[in-house]
Amino acid sequence: MAALSRAAAAAADASDPLASYRDRFVHSDARIYLDGNSLGRLPIATRDRLTALTAEWGERLVGGWPEWIDAPTRTGDLIAQVIGAGPGEVLVCDSTTVNLFKLVGAALDARGGGARGGAGGGRGTGGALVTDRGNFPTDRYVLEGIAAQRGLDLRLFDGEPDAATLPCGHGDVVVLSQVGYRSGALADLPALQAAARERGATLIWDLSHAAGVVPVDLREAGAELAVGCTYKYLNAGPGAPAYLYVAAGLHGELRSPIWGWFGQRDQFAMERDYDPEPDIRRYLAGTPPILGLAAVEEGVRLTAQAGIAALRAKSIRLTELLIGLHDAWLAPLGFELASPRVAQRRGSHVSLRHQRAWQITRALIERCDVVPDFRGPDSIRLGVAPLYTRHVDVWDALDRLRDLVERGEHEAVDATPGRVT
Amino acid sequence: MAALSRAAAAAADASDPLASYRDRFVHSDARIYLDGNSLGRLPIATRDRLTALTAEWGERLVGGWPEWIDAPTRTGDLIAQVIGAGPGEVLVCDSTTVNLFKLVGAALDARGGGARGGAGGGRGTGGALVTDRGNFPTDRYVLEGIAAQRGLDLRLFDGEPDAATLPCGHGDVVVLSQVGYRSGALADLPALQAAARERGATLIWDLSHAAGVVPVDLREAGAELAVGCTYKYLNAGPGAPAYLYVAAGLHGELRSPIWGWFGQRDQFAMERDYDPEPDIRRYLAGTPPILGLAAVEEGVRLTAQAGIAALRAKSIRLTELLIGLHDAWLAPLGFELASPRVAQRRGSHVSLRHQRAWQITRALIERCDVVPDFRGPDSIRLGVAPLYTRHVDVWDALDRLRDLVERGEHEAVDATPGRVT
Repeated sequence: MAALSRAAAAAADASDPLASYRDRFVHSDARIYLDGNSLGRLPIATRDRLTALTAEWGERLVGGWPEWIDAPTRTGDLIAQVIGAGPGEVLVCDSTTVNLFKLVGAALDARGGGARGGAGGGRGTGGALVTDRGNFPTDRYVLEGIAAQRGLDLRLFDGEPDAATLPCGHGDVVVLSQVGYRSGALADLPALQAAARERGATLIWDLSHAAGVVPVDLREAGAELAVGCTYKYLNAGPGAPAYLYVAAGLHGELRSPIWGWFGQRDQFAMERDYDPEPDIRRYLAGTPPILGLAAVEEGVRLTAQAGIAALRAKSIRLTELLIGLHDAWLAPLGFELASPRVAQRRGSHVSLRHQRAWQITRALIERCDVVPDFRGPDSIRLGVAPLYTRHVDVWDALDRLRDLVERGEHEAVDATPGRVT
Repeated sequence: MAALSRAAAAAADASDPLASYRDRFVHSDARIYLDGNSLGRLPIATRDRLTALTAEWGERLVGGWPEWIDAPTRTGDLIAQVIGAGPGEVLVCDSTTVNLFKLVGAALDARGGGARGGAGGGRGTGGALVTDRGNFPTDRYVLEGIAAQRGLDLRLFDGEPDAATLPCGHGDVVVLSQVGYRSGALADLPALQAAARERGATLIWDLSHAAGVVPVDLREAGAELAVGCTYKYLNAGPGAPAYLYVAAGLHGELRSPIWGWFGQRDQFAMERDYDPEPDIRRYLAGTPPILGLAAVEEGVRLTAQAGIAALRAKSIRLTELLIGLHDAWLAPLGFELASPRVAQRRGSHVSLRHQRAWQITRALIERCDVVPDFRGPDSIRLGVAPLYTRHVDVWDALDRLRDLVERGEHEAVDATPGRVT
């Protein structure tokens, strides 16, 4: 790691090959924003595209549809570029929750016979739903619901996902996040995928906290299924549509449990029985959200242009600086690093634990113009978004955080946690 | 009906109490738009709101969420005003397809015991899924899929839904559209609801082609469940989020089959098991689409301000004029009215059958600056949107249609139907 000085941080920014990307986002004030892991910034291109697309709706009306209708696959192909998928393997639609529901259902319906019962013998009919207790709530809830409805066991394991100990067997469906929302720990995707395959389990990845900042190579790892959101590092805006990935080899074999008219082959021959598209479009359900899709397209385009290798390299430099400053300034003040210290095991956000995490978070926002986020009971998450976070931002944010806690200013904040997003 | 003359049509516009609403929409050219039943026009307030909200994302970033997070219920309360529901009974979320999937699942899961097994005895455990063969494709597909997954019978009946003959019994789940997408026929909602109740079936309404143009009084009719889209007469834009209605008395009893973090009570206490909100929010799944929700809010606001009674009165005047002109001008040219002739049995679009419907539709758009839509094999749909369609628009559109067919100009169009939306 470079020497700890603000001048060194400024020098790192001056030589940053991605520096110009910062100017492609709206910055309305001097706030230091370290919550791009929750909601990314607004790209200028997105603002302009939304204006143009709204005008297009007004002008073209229903005549716009022939062009709009391909947005879920066109935008999916762009996402494919940043998660190591091929063209036609990614679809932008619905929310992460609904997409996960669809893929878990598809995997279960394909087990042991039926669509999945051809050569190779299917996936068995027994089995449980498996995830880690620390996985993101919606992932757990989706599994909990499906387990209750189908009378399946839900197996929650403790600790970070590990290939050697992944508790799954033949016919199980496992859901794992590549980067943990709380700890920022980066799972070993290829090793876990291989472990699941060896044990005969189907593994579904949640890439929400990973896509856009860590290398994801789904094809290379032989990954079969994945979902993710677009409003974090992909900068598509609050509640923008999510995506799903289904490896091309599974397109004929699996189908969504939600049968809808946009997944229907020859959709506008409306009299027919359901006969899903042969490709990724079979996972569409209702009418695609055109404004949201455009925001995804513009957001992801920036990430694809910058390139994951450069983004990852900068992300590591930024989190290394953050951890270095934590060690030097914050550890003596009662902070504890709650994210992996080894860069190769870490995503792009760093969690710090402190007994007064809630009060410190509020004081940082209200008094220091620094925006982190809080995850109960005692974590402050600091996310760096390599498209727009600078080294001096990390320096200044931690400098203000140190001052704040040294002076005890956070103690004036009501200690009762309020609503947090 | 008023005398058939363009002067009479112009006079009807001059005395139209809703005339000023036309100016609240973007009109980029002189096209006569008769496809608001498929995709409504862009309200000026929506255009401005989307610009402001995009800026708000850029400025407030994650700090916008405390305000945004209530959009699904706040916007739902506005929709409640135009469909006769109470506050807290309508939620804006997901697509119509996904919402229908949720409510069919909720109704089935509640049958005969479990959550629905308290006083009153539940809904029985047998039963089939029931709809009319002519219902909108996505409604049929959702039922077809659920029937396949749960091993239930799917019963498709022919003809328009009729209370006397509605083929359902104890424990069945029935899905009906209040206005048929093809014929424009308006179902007798209160009578059908009473028939379903008497027979012990659960009835789910699809209001997509009804909301905003015909009176819907869900509470008065004792309706339990409904879904609908917002991009037709509610003018919320291409693929805008849909809504669902669950009568307040069922909130504790039913739950969505898709368990997600936005439906969770005390959502940000993330460690807990799934414990859904006690109210309509339990039907939320993933993160709400904030831009789309704002477009719904602005669109519905116009409808609520104009008032359904006035909108319905004007809609009837417009469709009466349309049918009168059809009888006078088009019937002799081989057209046939495929919508109910009695206003009380008709929604706000009129279907005309013609052997050359596809060619006529294309020629109307390309040569006459009139936008209808085509539904295979032989229907031209002409929708009137009382917020912005004028009597002279109907007059001029049918005048051009008559001229076109009299001169045989449509015959130059390739007779092979292409992609239609």
